[in-house]
Amino acid sequence: MAPWGERLAGVRGVLLDISGVLYDSGAGGGTAIAGSVEAVARLKGSRLKVRFCTNESQKSRAELVGQLRRLGFDISEGEVTAPAPAACQILKERGLRPYLLIHDGVRSEFDQIDTSNPNCVVIADAGESFSYQNMNNAFQVLMELENPVLMSLGKGRYYKETSGLMLDVGPYMKALEYACGIKAEVVGKPSPEFFKSALQAIGVEAHQAVMIGDDIVGDVGGAQRCGMRALQVRTGKFRPSDEHHPEVKADGYVDNLAEAVDLLLQHTDK
Amino acid sequence: MAPWGERLAGVRGVLLDISGVLYDSGAGGGTAIAGSVEAVARLKGSRLKVRFCTNESQKSRAELVGQLRRLGFDISEGEVTAPAPAACQILKERGLRPYLLIHDGVRSEFDQIDTSNPNCVVIADAGESFSYQNMNNAFQVLMELENPVLMSLGKGRYYKETSGLMLDVGPYMKALEYACGIKAEVVGKPSPEFFKSALQAIGVEAHQAVMIGDDIVGDVGGAQRCGMRALQVRTGKFRPSDEHHPEVKADGYVDNLAEAVDLLLQHTDK
Repeated sequence: MAPWGERLAGVRGVLLDISGVLYDSGAGGGTAIAGSVEAVARLKGSRLKVRFCTNESQKSRAELVGQLRRLGFDISEGEVTAPAPAACQILKERGLRPYLLIHDGVRSEFDQIDTSNPNCVVIADAGESFSYQNMNNAFQVLMELENPVLMSLGKGRYYKETSGLMLDVGPYMKALEYACGIKAEVVGKPSPEFFKSALQAIGVEAHQAVMIGDDIVGDVGGAQRCGMRALQVRTGKFRPSDEHHPEVKADGYVDNLAEAVDLLLQHTDK
Repeated sequence: MAPWGERLAGVRGVLLDISGVLYDSGAGGGTAIAGSVEAVARLKGSRLKVRFCTNESQKSRAELVGQLRRLGFDISEGEVTAPAPAACQILKERGLRPYLLIHDGVRSEFDQIDTSNPNCVVIADAGESFSYQNMNNAFQVLMELENPVLMSLGKGRYYKETSGLMLDVGPYMKALEYACGIKAEVVGKPSPEFFKSALQAIGVEAHQAVMIGDDIVGDVGGAQRCGMRALQVRTGKFRPSDEHHPEVKADGYVDNLAEAVDLLLQHTDK
Protein backbone atom coordinates (compact mmCIF):
# COMPACT_ATOMS: atom_id res chain seq x y z
CA MET A 1 0.00 0.00 0.00
CA ALA A 2 1.03 3.59 -0.53
CA PRO A 3 2.42 5.46 2.49
CA TRP A 4 -0.20 6.98 4.82
CA GLY A 5 0.76 10.50 3.74
CA GLU A 6 -0.38 9.73 0.21
CA ARG A 7 -3.42 7.79 1.25
CA LEU A 8 -4.69 10.61 3.46
CA ALA A 9 -3.61 13.55 1.29
CA GLY A 10 -6.17 16.34 1.05
CA VAL A 11 -8.52 15.00 3.73
CA ARG A 12 -10.60 17.83 5.22
CA GLY A 13 -13.46 15.93 6.84
CA VAL A 14 -14.09 12.72 8.74
CA LEU A 15 -17.28 10.67 9.04
CA LEU A 16 -17.32 8.48 12.14
CA ASP A 17 -19.44 5.39 12.54
CA ILE A 18 -20.60 5.08 16.15
CA SER A 19 -21.38 1.48 17.18
CA GLY A 20 -18.20 -0.61 17.09
CA VAL A 21 -16.00 2.47 16.62
CA LEU A 22 -16.86 4.74 19.56
CA TYR A 23 -18.45 2.09 21.76
CA ASP A 24 -19.91 -1.41 21.92
CA SER A 25 -23.59 -1.24 22.82
CA GLY A 26 -24.99 -3.60 25.42
CA ALA A 27 -26.54 -3.93 28.83
CA GLY A 28 -26.23 -0.85 31.05
CA GLY A 29 -25.49 1.47 28.13
CA GLY A 30 -22.51 -0.42 26.68
CA THR A 31 -18.80 0.36 27.04
CA ALA A 32 -16.53 2.86 25.34
CA ILE A 33 -13.84 1.33 23.12
CA ALA A 34 -10.41 2.01 24.65
CA GLY A 35 -8.97 5.33 23.48
CA SER A 36 -12.08 6.42 21.57
CA VAL A 37 -13.26 9.14 23.99
CA GLU A 38 -9.89 10.87 23.73
CA ALA A 39 -9.67 10.25 19.98
CA VAL A 40 -12.99 12.02 19.34
CA ALA A 41 -11.87 14.94 21.52
CA ARG A 42 -8.57 15.27 19.64
CA LEU A 43 -10.29 15.09 16.27
CA LYS A 44 -12.80 17.76 17.23
CA GLY A 45 -9.94 19.94 18.49
CA SER A 46 -8.20 19.70 15.09
CA ARG A 47 -8.88 21.54 11.82
CA LEU A 48 -10.71 18.52 10.44
CA LYS A 49 -14.49 18.65 10.14
CA VAL A 50 -16.22 15.82 11.99
CA ARG A 51 -19.67 14.23 11.52
CA PHE A 52 -21.11 11.13 13.15
CA CYS A 53 -22.75 8.88 10.57
CA THR A 54 -24.62 5.96 12.09
CA ASN A 55 -27.14 3.32 11.11
CA GLU A 56 -28.33 3.12 14.72
CA SER A 57 -32.06 2.58 14.42
CA GLN A 58 -32.89 1.06 17.78
CA LYS A 59 -32.54 4.31 19.72
CA SER A 60 -33.56 7.89 19.03
CA ARG A 61 -30.71 10.33 18.48
CA ALA A 62 -31.49 11.89 21.87
CA GLU A 63 -31.15 8.55 23.64
CA LEU A 64 -28.02 7.59 21.71
CA VAL A 65 -26.28 10.90 22.37
CA GLY A 66 -27.27 10.74 26.05
CA GLN A 67 -25.67 7.32 26.38
CA LEU A 68 -22.50 8.41 24.62
CA ARG A 69 -22.19 11.54 26.74
CA ARG A 70 -22.49 9.42 29.88
CA LEU A 71 -19.56 7.37 28.55
CA GLY A 72 -17.56 10.62 28.25
CA PHE A 73 -17.93 11.45 24.54
CA ASP A 74 -18.16 15.05 23.33
CA ILE A 75 -21.14 14.69 20.98
CA SER A 76 -24.47 16.45 20.43
CA GLU A 77 -27.64 15.53 18.55
CA GLY A 78 -27.00 18.10 15.83
CA GLU A 79 -23.75 16.36 14.88
CA VAL A 80 -25.40 13.00 14.13
CA THR A 81 -26.70 11.75 10.77
CA ALA A 82 -29.08 8.84 11.48
CA PRO A 83 -31.59 6.93 9.34
CA ALA A 84 -34.83 7.53 11.27
CA PRO A 85 -34.97 11.30 10.65
CA ALA A 86 -33.97 10.71 7.02
CA ALA A 87 -36.81 8.19 6.66
CA CYS A 88 -39.33 10.60 8.19
CA GLN A 89 -38.46 13.20 5.59
CA ILE A 90 -39.02 10.70 2.76
CA LEU A 91 -42.30 9.47 4.27
CA LYS A 92 -43.61 13.04 4.45
CA GLU A 93 -42.47 13.91 0.92
CA ARG A 94 -44.19 10.85 -0.56
CA GLY A 95 -47.32 10.84 1.59
CA LEU A 96 -46.50 7.40 3.00
CA ARG A 97 -48.14 6.08 6.18
CA PRO A 98 -45.92 3.34 7.60
CA TYR A 99 -46.54 0.23 9.60
CA LEU A 100 -43.55 0.61 11.95
CA LEU A 101 -41.58 -2.58 12.64
CA ILE A 102 -39.19 -0.81 15.00
CA HIS A 103 -37.82 -0.82 18.53
CA ASP A 104 -39.74 1.21 21.10
CA GLY A 105 -36.52 3.18 21.73
CA VAL A 106 -36.71 4.90 18.33
CA ARG A 107 -40.49 5.40 18.20
CA SER A 108 -40.25 9.03 19.34
CA GLU A 109 -38.46 9.91 16.07
CA PHE A 110 -41.73 9.04 14.26
CA ASP A 111 -44.01 11.12 16.52
CA GLN A 112 -45.04 13.43 13.67
CA ILE A 113 -45.79 10.61 11.21
CA ASP A 114 -49.32 9.42 10.39
CA THR A 115 -49.41 5.64 10.86
CA SER A 116 -53.14 5.09 10.30
CA ASN A 117 -54.26 2.76 7.49
CA PRO A 118 -50.64 1.92 6.49
CA ASN A 119 -49.55 2.03 2.84
CA CYS A 120 -45.93 0.99 3.45
CA VAL A 121 -43.69 -0.73 5.99
CA VAL A 122 -40.67 0.79 7.72
CA ILE A 123 -38.31 -1.75 9.22
CA ALA A 124 -35.46 -0.89 11.59
CA ASP A 125 -33.27 -2.75 14.07
CA ALA A 126 -36.20 -3.85 16.21
CA GLY A 127 -34.26 -6.28 18.41
CA GLU A 128 -36.62 -8.26 20.61
CA SER A 129 -39.56 -6.67 18.77
CA PHE A 130 -38.70 -8.90 15.78
CA SER A 131 -41.33 -11.36 17.00
CA TYR A 132 -43.09 -13.70 14.58
CA GLN A 133 -46.29 -11.78 15.21
CA ASN A 134 -44.77 -8.41 14.31
CA MET A 135 -42.99 -9.80 11.25
CA ASN A 136 -46.24 -11.39 10.11
CA ASN A 137 -48.14 -8.12 10.61
CA ALA A 138 -45.61 -6.31 8.40
CA PHE A 139 -45.83 -9.12 5.83
CA GLN A 140 -49.63 -8.96 5.73
CA VAL A 141 -49.58 -5.17 5.27
CA LEU A 142 -47.21 -5.53 2.31
CA MET A 143 -49.22 -8.36 0.72
CA GLU A 144 -52.38 -6.22 0.79
CA LEU A 145 -50.74 -3.38 -1.16
CA GLU A 146 -50.84 -3.12 -4.92
CA ASN A 147 -47.40 -1.48 -4.99
CA PRO A 148 -45.76 -2.60 -1.76
CA VAL A 149 -43.10 -0.23 -0.36
CA LEU A 150 -40.64 -1.60 2.19
CA MET A 151 -38.25 0.99 3.64
CA SER A 152 -35.32 -0.40 5.63
CA LEU A 153 -33.22 1.71 8.00
CA GLY A 154 -29.86 0.27 6.99
CA LYS A 155 -29.25 -3.30 5.86
CA GLY A 156 -26.46 -4.37 8.24
CA ARG A 157 -26.05 -8.10 8.78
CA TYR A 158 -25.12 -7.95 12.44
CA TYR A 159 -23.44 -5.81 15.08
CA LYS A 160 -21.48 -6.51 18.19
CA GLU A 161 -22.84 -6.03 21.66
CA THR A 162 -20.78 -6.56 24.78
CA SER A 163 -22.53 -9.96 25.05
CA GLY A 164 -21.75 -11.08 21.48
CA LEU A 165 -22.84 -10.71 17.85
CA MET A 166 -26.46 -9.68 17.34
CA LEU A 167 -28.65 -9.84 14.24
CA ASP A 168 -29.20 -6.41 12.69
CA VAL A 169 -32.06 -5.22 10.49
CA GLY A 170 -30.61 -6.58 7.21
CA PRO A 171 -31.57 -10.24 7.69
CA TYR A 172 -35.16 -9.26 8.53
CA MET A 173 -35.29 -6.95 5.53
CA LYS A 174 -34.18 -9.91 3.37
CA ALA A 175 -36.86 -12.09 4.96
CA LEU A 176 -39.64 -9.66 3.98
CA GLU A 177 -38.14 -9.12 0.51
CA TYR A 178 -38.23 -12.87 -0.11
CA ALA A 179 -41.67 -13.38 1.44
CA CYS A 180 -43.24 -10.67 -0.72
CA GLY A 181 -41.06 -10.89 -3.83
CA ILE A 182 -40.02 -7.23 -3.55
CA LYS A 183 -36.88 -5.09 -3.12
CA ALA A 184 -36.52 -2.81 -0.09
CA GLU A 185 -35.49 0.84 -0.29
CA VAL A 186 -32.55 1.31 2.08
CA VAL A 187 -32.31 4.53 4.08
CA GLY A 188 -28.93 4.75 5.83
CA LYS A 189 -25.49 3.44 4.97
CA PRO A 190 -24.55 2.26 2.33
CA SER A 191 -27.09 4.42 0.46
CA PRO A 192 -25.19 7.19 -1.39
CA GLU A 193 -27.89 9.78 -0.50
CA PHE A 194 -27.24 9.11 3.17
CA PHE A 195 -23.46 9.58 2.97
CA LYS A 196 -23.99 12.71 0.86
CA SER A 197 -26.34 14.25 3.43
CA ALA A 198 -23.69 13.67 6.12
CA LEU A 199 -21.03 15.33 3.95
CA GLN A 200 -23.32 18.25 3.14
CA ALA A 201 -23.83 18.87 6.85
CA ILE A 202 -20.10 19.63 7.22
CA GLY A 203 -19.59 21.19 3.77
CA VAL A 204 -16.98 18.69 2.64
CA GLU A 205 -16.71 17.05 -0.79
CA ALA A 206 -16.56 13.26 -1.04
CA HIS A 207 -12.97 13.27 -2.35
CA GLN A 208 -11.90 15.31 0.68
CA ALA A 209 -13.48 12.96 3.22
CA VAL A 210 -12.65 9.72 4.97
CA MET A 211 -15.15 7.35 6.58
CA ILE A 212 -14.05 5.36 9.64
CA GLY A 213 -16.13 2.28 10.41
CA ASP A 214 -16.12 -1.33 11.56
CA ASP A 215 -18.30 -2.65 8.69
CA ILE A 216 -16.30 -3.58 5.61
CA VAL A 217 -19.35 -3.54 3.34
CA GLY A 218 -21.71 -0.92 4.78
CA ASP A 219 -19.11 1.61 5.94
CA VAL A 220 -16.03 1.02 3.82
CA GLY A 221 -17.54 -0.23 0.57
CA GLY A 222 -20.45 2.20 0.75
CA ALA A 223 -18.25 5.25 1.35
CA GLN A 224 -15.82 4.28 -1.40
CA ARG A 225 -18.66 3.97 -3.90
CA CYS A 226 -19.46 7.61 -3.06
CA GLY A 227 -15.92 8.69 -3.89
CA MET A 228 -14.73 8.85 -0.29
CA ARG A 229 -11.78 7.09 1.25
CA ALA A 230 -12.48 4.68 4.09
CA LEU A 231 -10.60 3.05 6.96
CA GLN A 232 -11.73 -0.06 8.80
CA VAL A 233 -11.08 -0.35 12.53
CA ARG A 234 -10.30 -3.72 14.08
CA THR A 235 -12.94 -3.18 16.77
CA GLY A 236 -16.70 -3.82 16.95
CA LYS A 237 -17.87 -6.36 14.41
CA PHE A 238 -14.49 -6.48 12.61
CA ARG A 239 -13.38 -10.01 11.75
CA PRO A 240 -9.88 -10.89 10.47
CA SER A 241 -11.39 -12.23 7.23
CA ASP A 242 -12.57 -8.67 6.45
CA GLU A 243 -8.98 -7.81 5.45
CA HIS A 244 -9.30 -10.33 2.61
CA HIS A 245 -12.84 -9.44 1.60
CA PRO A 246 -13.53 -10.60 -1.98
CA GLU A 247 -15.06 -7.29 -3.08
CA VAL A 248 -14.04 -4.48 -0.76
CA LYS A 249 -10.55 -3.25 0.10
CA ALA A 250 -10.26 -0.46 2.66
CA ASP A 251 -7.81 2.39 2.14
CA GLY A 252 -6.30 1.25 5.41
CA TYR A 253 -6.89 -1.01 8.40
CA VAL A 254 -6.21 0.35 11.88
CA ASP A 255 -6.43 -1.23 15.31
CA ASN A 256 -8.95 1.27 16.60
CA LEU A 257 -10.21 4.84 16.31
CA ALA A 258 -7.27 6.10 18.37
CA GLU A 259 -4.80 4.82 15.77
CA ALA A 260 -6.92 6.26 12.95
CA VAL A 261 -6.89 9.69 14.59
CA ASP A 262 -3.14 9.50 15.23
CA LEU A 263 -2.60 8.89 11.52
CA LEU A 264 -5.07 11.57 10.44
CA LEU A 265 -3.53 14.24 12.64
CA GLN A 266 -0.03 13.24 11.60
CA HIS A 267 -0.60 13.03 7.86
CA THR A 268 -3.31 15.52 6.86
CA ASP A 269 -2.50 19.14 6.12
CA LYS A 270 -1.93 21.14 9.26
CA MET B 1 -53.48 -25.81 -23.95
CA ALA B 2 -53.76 -29.40 -25.14
CA PRO B 3 -56.90 -31.32 -24.13
CA TRP B 4 -56.83 -32.89 -20.67
CA GLY B 5 -56.65 -36.40 -22.17
CA GLU B 6 -53.27 -35.55 -23.69
CA ARG B 7 -52.01 -33.66 -20.71
CA LEU B 8 -52.76 -36.52 -18.33
CA ALA B 9 -51.88 -39.42 -20.63
CA GLY B 10 -49.92 -42.21 -18.96
CA VAL B 11 -50.33 -40.94 -15.39
CA ARG B 12 -50.00 -43.81 -12.90
CA GLY B 13 -49.28 -41.97 -9.66
CA VAL B 14 -50.30 -38.79 -7.86
CA LEU B 15 -48.40 -36.77 -5.27
CA LEU B 16 -50.67 -34.64 -3.11
CA ASP B 17 -49.59 -31.57 -1.21
CA ILE B 18 -51.48 -31.35 2.08
CA SER B 19 -51.75 -27.78 3.40
CA GLY B 20 -53.84 -25.67 1.03
CA VAL B 21 -54.96 -28.74 -0.96
CA LEU B 22 -56.53 -31.06 1.61
CA TYR B 23 -57.10 -28.46 4.31
CA ASP B 24 -56.29 -24.98 5.55
CA SER B 25 -54.46 -25.18 8.87
CA GLY B 26 -55.48 -22.87 11.70
CA ALA B 27 -56.95 -22.61 15.16
CA GLY B 28 -58.78 -25.73 16.35
CA GLY B 29 -57.10 -28.00 13.79
CA GLY B 30 -58.05 -26.09 10.67
CA THR B 31 -60.79 -26.83 8.15
CA ALA B 32 -61.06 -29.30 5.27
CA ILE B 33 -61.24 -27.70 1.83
CA ALA B 34 -64.66 -28.37 0.30
CA GLY B 35 -64.74 -31.66 -1.59
CA SER B 36 -61.22 -32.75 -0.61
CA VAL B 37 -62.17 -35.51 1.85
CA GLU B 38 -64.25 -37.23 -0.85
CA ALA B 39 -61.64 -36.54 -3.52
CA VAL B 40 -58.91 -38.31 -1.54
CA ALA B 41 -61.23 -41.28 -0.95
CA ARG B 42 -62.07 -41.53 -4.66
CA LEU B 43 -58.40 -41.29 -5.65
CA LYS B 44 -57.40 -44.00 -3.19
CA GLY B 45 -60.23 -46.19 -4.51
CA SER B 46 -58.90 -45.88 -8.07
CA ARG B 47 -56.00 -47.67 -9.79
CA LEU B 48 -53.77 -44.60 -9.31
CA LYS B 49 -51.00 -44.75 -6.73
CA VAL B 50 -51.24 -41.96 -4.16
CA ARG B 51 -48.58 -40.40 -1.90
CA PHE B 52 -48.87 -37.33 0.32
CA CYS B 53 -45.87 -35.05 -0.17
CA THR B 54 -45.77 -32.16 2.29
CA ASN B 55 -43.36 -29.52 3.55
CA GLU B 56 -45.25 -29.42 6.85
CA SER B 57 -42.52 -28.89 9.42
CA GLN B 58 -44.47 -27.43 12.33
CA LYS B 59 -46.10 -30.72 13.32
CA SER B 60 -44.88 -34.30 13.54
CA ARG B 61 -46.36 -36.72 11.01
CA ALA B 62 -48.33 -38.33 13.84
CA GLU B 63 -49.90 -35.03 14.85
CA LEU B 64 -50.59 -34.00 11.24
CA VAL B 65 -52.21 -37.32 10.36
CA GLY B 66 -54.26 -37.24 13.56
CA GLN B 67 -55.61 -33.80 12.65
CA LEU B 68 -56.45 -34.85 9.11
CA ARG B 69 -58.19 -38.03 10.26
CA ARG B 70 -60.32 -35.96 12.63
CA LEU B 71 -61.33 -33.87 9.59
CA GLY B 72 -62.43 -37.11 7.86
CA PHE B 73 -59.42 -37.86 5.63
CA ASP B 74 -58.34 -41.44 4.92
CA ILE B 75 -54.59 -41.06 5.56
CA SER B 76 -51.95 -42.83 7.61
CA GLU B 77 -48.41 -41.88 8.71
CA GLY B 78 -46.82 -44.37 6.36
CA GLU B 79 -48.31 -42.61 3.33
CA VAL B 80 -46.68 -39.25 4.13
CA THR B 81 -43.33 -37.95 2.85
CA ALA B 82 -42.29 -35.07 5.13
CA PRO B 83 -39.04 -33.13 5.58
CA ALA B 84 -38.29 -33.78 9.27
CA PRO B 85 -37.69 -37.54 8.89
CA ALA B 86 -35.67 -36.88 5.73
CA ALA B 87 -33.53 -34.37 7.63
CA CYS B 88 -32.95 -36.84 10.49
CA GLN B 89 -31.58 -39.37 8.04
CA ILE B 90 -29.14 -36.82 6.59
CA LEU B 91 -28.06 -35.64 10.07
CA LYS B 92 -27.26 -39.22 11.09
CA GLU B 93 -25.42 -40.02 7.84
CA ARG B 94 -23.20 -36.95 8.18
CA GLY B 95 -22.70 -37.00 11.95
CA LEU B 96 -24.32 -33.59 12.35
CA ARG B 97 -25.58 -32.35 15.73
CA PRO B 98 -28.15 -29.62 15.09
CA TYR B 99 -29.25 -26.55 16.95
CA LEU B 100 -32.98 -26.94 16.31
CA LEU B 101 -34.85 -23.75 15.37
CA ILE B 102 -38.19 -25.55 15.16
CA HIS B 103 -41.72 -25.60 16.53
CA ASP B 104 -42.32 -27.70 19.64
CA GLY B 105 -44.92 -29.66 17.65
CA VAL B 106 -42.26 -31.29 15.46
CA ARG B 107 -39.62 -31.82 18.17
CA SER B 108 -40.59 -35.48 18.68
CA GLU B 109 -39.37 -36.29 15.14
CA PHE B 110 -35.84 -35.41 16.37
CA ASP B 111 -35.96 -37.54 19.54
CA GLN B 112 -33.14 -39.80 18.33
CA ILE B 113 -30.85 -36.94 17.29
CA ASP B 114 -27.88 -35.77 19.37
CA THR B 115 -28.19 -32.00 19.83
CA SER B 116 -25.28 -31.47 22.23
CA ASN B 117 -22.49 -29.09 21.20
CA PRO B 118 -24.16 -28.21 17.86
CA ASN B 119 -22.20 -28.25 14.60
CA CYS B 120 -25.09 -27.19 12.35
CA VAL B 121 -28.50 -25.48 12.43
CA VAL B 122 -31.79 -27.02 11.33
CA ILE B 123 -34.52 -24.48 10.64
CA ALA B 124 -38.18 -25.37 10.11
CA ASP B 125 -41.50 -23.56 10.18
CA ALA B 126 -41.11 -22.51 13.81
CA GLY B 127 -44.07 -20.13 13.91
CA GLU B 128 -44.13 -18.19 17.17
CA SER B 129 -40.77 -19.76 18.07
CA PHE B 130 -39.16 -17.48 15.48
CA SER B 131 -38.34 -15.06 18.28
CA TYR B 132 -35.38 -12.70 18.01
CA GLN B 133 -33.67 -14.65 20.78
CA ASN B 134 -33.99 -18.00 18.97
CA MET B 135 -32.94 -16.54 15.63
CA ASN B 136 -29.92 -14.95 17.29
CA ASN B 137 -29.00 -18.24 18.97
CA ALA B 138 -29.03 -19.99 15.58
CA PHE B 139 -27.01 -17.14 14.07
CA GLN B 140 -24.39 -17.31 16.82
CA VAL B 141 -24.04 -21.11 16.40
CA LEU B 142 -23.44 -20.65 12.66
CA MET B 143 -20.94 -17.83 13.14
CA GLU B 144 -18.84 -19.98 15.48
CA LEU B 145 -18.48 -22.77 12.90
CA GLU B 146 -15.63 -22.94 10.44
CA ASN B 147 -17.88 -24.56 7.80
CA PRO B 148 -21.39 -23.49 8.78
CA VAL B 149 -24.19 -25.86 7.72
CA LEU B 150 -27.75 -24.52 7.63
CA MET B 151 -30.39 -27.11 6.78
CA SER B 152 -33.86 -25.75 5.99
CA LEU B 153 -37.01 -27.89 5.98
CA GLY B 154 -38.52 -26.39 2.86
CA LYS B 155 -38.13 -22.80 1.69
CA GLY B 156 -41.74 -21.75 1.25
CA ARG B 157 -42.49 -18.04 1.40
CA TYR B 158 -45.83 -18.25 3.18
CA TYR B 159 -48.86 -20.43 3.66
CA LYS B 160 -52.50 -19.77 4.31
CA GLU B 161 -54.15 -20.35 7.64
CA THR B 162 -57.84 -19.87 8.22
CA SER B 163 -56.91 -16.47 9.75
CA GLY B 164 -54.79 -15.28 6.81
CA LEU B 165 -51.38 -15.57 5.15
CA MET B 166 -48.55 -16.64 7.48
CA LEU B 167 -44.77 -16.42 7.03
CA ASP B 168 -43.25 -19.83 6.32
CA VAL B 169 -39.67 -21.00 6.93
CA GLY B 170 -38.24 -19.57 3.69
CA PRO B 171 -37.99 -15.92 4.78
CA TYR B 172 -36.20 -16.95 7.98
CA MET B 173 -33.86 -19.20 6.00
CA LYS B 174 -33.03 -16.20 3.80
CA ALA B 175 -32.43 -14.07 6.90
CA LEU B 176 -29.81 -16.49 8.25
CA GLU B 177 -28.25 -16.95 4.80
CA TYR B 178 -27.76 -13.20 4.51
CA ALA B 179 -26.59 -12.75 8.11
CA CYS B 180 -23.91 -15.43 7.78
CA GLY B 181 -23.08 -15.12 4.07
CA ILE B 182 -23.97 -18.78 3.43
CA LYS B 183 -26.38 -20.90 1.35
CA ALA B 184 -28.83 -23.24 3.07
CA GLU B 185 -29.36 -26.88 2.09
CA VAL B 186 -33.08 -27.36 1.52
CA VAL B 187 -34.68 -30.63 2.63
CA GLY B 188 -38.24 -30.86 1.30
CA LYS B 189 -39.94 -29.50 -1.80
CA PRO B 190 -38.61 -28.27 -4.26
CA SER B 191 -35.51 -30.41 -3.67
CA PRO B 192 -35.39 -33.14 -6.36
CA GLU B 193 -34.21 -35.76 -3.83
CA PHE B 194 -37.36 -35.16 -1.83
CA PHE B 195 -39.75 -35.59 -4.76
CA LYS B 196 -37.81 -38.68 -5.84
CA SER B 197 -38.11 -40.30 -2.41
CA ALA B 198 -41.88 -39.77 -2.54
CA LEU B 199 -42.06 -41.36 -6.00
CA GLN B 200 -39.89 -44.28 -4.90
CA ALA B 201 -42.28 -44.98 -2.04
CA ILE B 202 -45.06 -45.72 -4.57
CA GLY B 203 -42.85 -47.21 -7.29
CA VAL B 204 -43.79 -44.66 -9.93
CA GLU B 205 -41.44 -42.96 -12.41
CA ALA B 206 -41.41 -39.16 -12.63
CA HIS B 207 -42.85 -39.11 -16.17
CA GLN B 208 -45.81 -41.22 -14.95
CA ALA B 209 -46.62 -38.93 -12.03
CA VAL B 210 -48.51 -35.71 -11.40
CA MET B 211 -48.05 -33.38 -8.45
CA ILE B 212 -51.07 -31.45 -7.15
CA GLY B 213 -50.26 -28.42 -5.06
CA ASP B 214 -51.16 -24.83 -4.21
CA ASP B 215 -47.59 -23.46 -4.50
CA ILE B 216 -46.67 -22.45 -8.04
CA VAL B 217 -42.93 -22.46 -7.32
CA GLY B 218 -42.38 -25.13 -4.66
CA ASP B 219 -44.97 -27.66 -5.83
CA VAL B 220 -45.49 -27.02 -9.54
CA GLY B 221 -42.07 -25.71 -10.58
CA GLY B 222 -40.23 -28.18 -8.35
CA ALA B 223 -42.13 -31.22 -9.62
CA GLN B 224 -41.74 -30.16 -13.25
CA ARG B 225 -37.96 -29.82 -12.81
CA CYS B 226 -38.02 -33.49 -11.73
CA GLY B 227 -39.78 -34.53 -14.93
CA MET B 228 -43.24 -34.75 -13.39
CA ARG B 229 -46.39 -33.02 -14.50
CA ALA B 230 -48.03 -30.65 -12.04
CA LEU B 231 -51.44 -29.07 -11.45
CA GLN B 232 -52.06 -26.00 -9.34
CA VAL B 233 -55.27 -25.79 -7.31
CA ARG B 234 -56.99 -22.45 -6.78
CA THR B 235 -57.18 -23.05 -3.03
CA GLY B 236 -54.79 -22.46 -0.13
CA LYS B 237 -52.15 -19.87 -0.92
CA PHE B 238 -53.09 -19.69 -4.62
CA ARG B 239 -53.23 -16.14 -5.95
CA PRO B 240 -54.64 -15.20 -9.38
CA SER B 241 -51.24 -13.81 -10.43
CA ASP B 242 -49.84 -17.37 -10.14
CA GLU B 243 -51.51 -18.19 -13.46
CA HIS B 244 -49.22 -15.62 -15.10
CA HIS B 245 -46.07 -16.50 -13.19
CA PRO B 246 -42.99 -15.27 -15.07
CA GLU B 247 -41.11 -18.57 -14.74
CA VAL B 248 -43.50 -21.41 -13.97
CA LYS B 249 -46.47 -22.64 -16.01
CA ALA B 250 -48.52 -25.47 -14.54
CA ASP B 251 -49.77 -28.31 -16.77
CA GLY B 252 -53.20 -27.22 -15.65
CA TYR B 253 -55.04 -25.01 -13.18
CA VAL B 254 -58.06 -26.43 -11.35
CA ASP B 255 -60.46 -24.94 -8.85
CA ASN B 256 -59.69 -27.47 -6.16
CA LEU B 257 -58.61 -31.04 -5.50
CA ALA B 258 -62.08 -32.34 -6.31
CA GLU B 259 -61.82 -30.98 -9.86
CA ALA B 260 -58.30 -32.39 -10.23
CA VAL B 261 -59.49 -35.84 -9.19
CA ASP B 262 -62.51 -35.64 -11.54
CA LEU B 263 -60.12 -34.96 -14.42
CA LEU B 264 -57.64 -37.63 -13.39
CA LEU B 265 -60.28 -40.32 -13.06
CA GLN B 266 -61.89 -39.29 -16.35
CA HIS B 267 -58.72 -39.01 -18.45
CA THR B 268 -56.15 -41.48 -17.15
CA ASP B 269 -56.12 -45.10 -18.29
CA LYS B 270 -58.85 -47.11 -16.63
